[in-house]
Amino acid sequence: MPPIPESVSELDRHDPLAPFKARFALPEGVLYLDGNSLGAQPLAARDALAATRDQWRDELIKGWNQGWFDAPERLGDLLAPLISAGKSEVVVTDNITLNIFKLLGYITELQGRSRPVILSEGGNFPADGYIAQGFCHCAGFEHQVLPEGGALADYLDDRVAVVVLSQVNYRTGRLRDMSETTALVHAHGAEVVWDLAHSAGALPVNLHGSGARYAVGCTYKYLNGGPGAPGFLYVHSDHQNRGWQPLSGWHGHAAPFAFDGDYAPAAGMTRFRTGTHSALTYAPLEASLQLWQDVDMAALRKKSLALGELFRDCLTDLLEAEGIDDITMPQEERGSQVAFIHREHGYAIVQALIARGVIGDYREPGLMRFGFTPLYLSYADVWQAAQHFREVVESREYLEARFQIRSEVT
Amino acid sequence: MPPIPESVSELDRHDPLAPFKARFALPEGVLYLDGNSLGAQPLAARDALAATRDQWRDELIKGWNQGWFDAPERLGDLLAPLISAGKSEVVVTDNITLNIFKLLGYITELQGRSRPVILSEGGNFPADGYIAQGFCHCAGFEHQVLPEGGALADYLDDRVAVVVLSQVNYRTGRLRDMSETTALVHAHGAEVVWDLAHSAGALPVNLHGSGARYAVGCTYKYLNGGPGAPGFLYVHSDHQNRGWQPLSGWHGHAAPFAFDGDYAPAAGMTRFRTGTHSALTYAPLEASLQLWQDVDMAALRKKSLALGELFRDCLTDLLEAEGIDDITMPQEERGSQVAFIHREHGYAIVQALIARGVIGDYREPGLMRFGFTPLYLSYADVWQAAQHFREVVESREYLEARFQIRSEVT
Repeated sequence: MPPIPESVSELDRHDPLAPFKARFALPEGVLYLDGNSLGAQPLAARDALAATRDQWRDELIKGWNQGWFDAPERLGDLLAPLISAGKSEVVVTDNITLNIFKLLGYITELQGRSRPVILSEGGNFPADGYIAQGFCHCAGFEHQVLPEGGALADYLDDRVAVVVLSQVNYRTGRLRDMSETTALVHAHGAEVVWDLAHSAGALPVNLHGSGARYAVGCTYKYLNGGPGAPGFLYVHSDHQNRGWQPLSGWHGHAAPFAFDGDYAPAAGMTRFRTGTHSALTYAPLEASLQLWQDVDMAALRKKSLALGELFRDCLTDLLEAEGIDDITMPQEERGSQVAFIHREHGYAIVQALIARGVIGDYREPGLMRFGFTPLYLSYADVWQAAQHFREVVESREYLEARFQIRSEVT
Repeated sequence: MPPIPESVSELDRHDPLAPFKARFALPEGVLYLDGNSLGAQPLAARDALAATRDQWRDELIKGWNQGWFDAPERLGDLLAPLISAGKSEVVVTDNITLNIFKLLGYITELQGRSRPVILSEGGNFPADGYIAQGFCHCAGFEHQVLPEGGALADYLDDRVAVVVLSQVNYRTGRLRDMSETTALVHAHGAEVVWDLAHSAGALPVNLHGSGARYAVGCTYKYLNGGPGAPGFLYVHSDHQNRGWQPLSGWHGHAAPFAFDGDYAPAAGMTRFRTGTHSALTYAPLEASLQLWQDVDMAALRKKSLALGELFRDCLTDLLEAEGIDDITMPQEERGSQVAFIHREHGYAIVQALIARGVIGDYREPGLMRFGFTPLYLSYADVWQAAQHFREVVESREYLEARFQIRSEVT
């Protein structure tokens, strides 16, 4: 591999986010472009997990009085500024699937079940559609799908109760205009639940500024909370305290330790909690969210786009010569990822890169996805990853039989 | 405190479960009678958590191919023999609240929504009633309550679809006859969802032998999985694969990595999974369940009852003299706990005991609850705990002001 060009080293020397890399535990010899699937490990998260492990041993049940019980609200308040939400508007709990179900129940109850349709997106991560289907099946609503590329306005009418939309598409990285879309949905008398899985921690999310009332997201991607770290749920303060959510659990009760026979929802976001949560998953996430308090989101966005452009610029000629489609969106409509398609060999190319320690990921059909996480990726890392991509493709090493074997989980 | 009597030491010398205590990380100076709220920490669980923390750092996204993804089914199979369930009949996922909701949706769909009532128990841990209420609210069913002490037969008619019952009552420790009750409910054409929170790991649970078709439980009490470790869900093999469960997530999809637009439930117990789970919570639980494979459940039951009787025998005269009610059930109708009531001072007595390092717990109103976990409690421990109880009560030290202060979470 040629030496890193001076122009690339220069970018790193002037990078205001460069010091964050030392706050992560990164394995040797890995260039990690998959922080959009599972974020890397903050050093402080390691320590926090070890401390909670000892707290379980030493404090036993008393740990619940020492920060475990109110972690969902405390971490929600730490997360809120990253998505321009206010204090007491975010709770960290369960996962995206369950949180969407809660919001569909909550919103349709507020609407008096006056509209029968739940609309979800085609061509996006299908989990949001699966749970919309489950909700409809259970609660007696009708599920409809907005096809990929379809104009949302054409699918909104007075039968639509709620639309579930991702701010950033998991495949293409397409960024929706949250303000414009929210206004459109509200103008039709419907509500929108925003899924921030690929935007929270990837770019500045402006919930308050865009008029968004409801959102969900995860914390194990850009927010570095650990594998399967809990999800979160946002309700604008003006829309809180209006009804039940259907997954009514004792941690969401107004007085959980009174052991009343009847459910009475707690005030604020607490009612969106269900049962006992894992203290061990909140500890590393809390440490990571504390690290995030120091991040300038505008600088993050600037570097995210610059890293993606560097990667693409290094490969323009190669992609054209090899017939690999670059479906990456223009910068203003992009999350924090670059997406290439090669129907025939996309899977094998990604496997060959992984064998070299360059971790991107693959999504059917044919999509090679590379995520850019400005806190722990340098410009030099990205330049090197692009060189590996070039070498893998030019050398045809992806044709080796070992790279064709599909693993169960990719 | 007087020396431990020879008769008590003799019991420990002949205890076949005594070697298990060395496999737990127990804090110095603590006598822990609250394993029925949060189990103590197996040494192997410490190691497993540390290993998974390193796996996150070193393997990053590849960890999902290295045992994280299929942990819910793998741990289900480890848990199954402890409750006399078969292979592929248990999945470890989410929490009790969410798992009850799934089963209520699944069962009522199988019944063609032909019966309108969900019945839950009064006087028991109220969370099961809260989620029954949430389900009814969302899915259009009617919630009814079996009052504490009421005869179940009087509340079963052809309108009852599902009954949610705890095998062991969280306050009194009362053990229901699972075979008799299951047969009664089935005879009325209804189904029963058993909550095993206070029985799994506390005594031999015989799901297959009792004709039980559906059950849920938690793993953070007697099963020592860690604070907020995931719940589990059991469906008898004859009743699997018959319909959807409403919390339909991508990890419960037949082909999660095909990213199909439509939900199609996976075969077997996998359909009861929802979204991405926390790998960090499964690791210590797996280590604990491996320890449990070595436990003779009949010996566990024998010691559990013997420990409870020793505690009571030490205090019979004191309870009578002080007007403290012993509401512990007879042995054949008892879980693994002892329950005393003192309306006026119960809370303060428990606080004074905690200050001495004797951890029991308190439940409103007036209930002092002491759980007996035979894997890490010796007869000497229980005898000493009883002496502390005697000293706290006889000395009136519980009257000190510091023991009257209510903490938010108890």
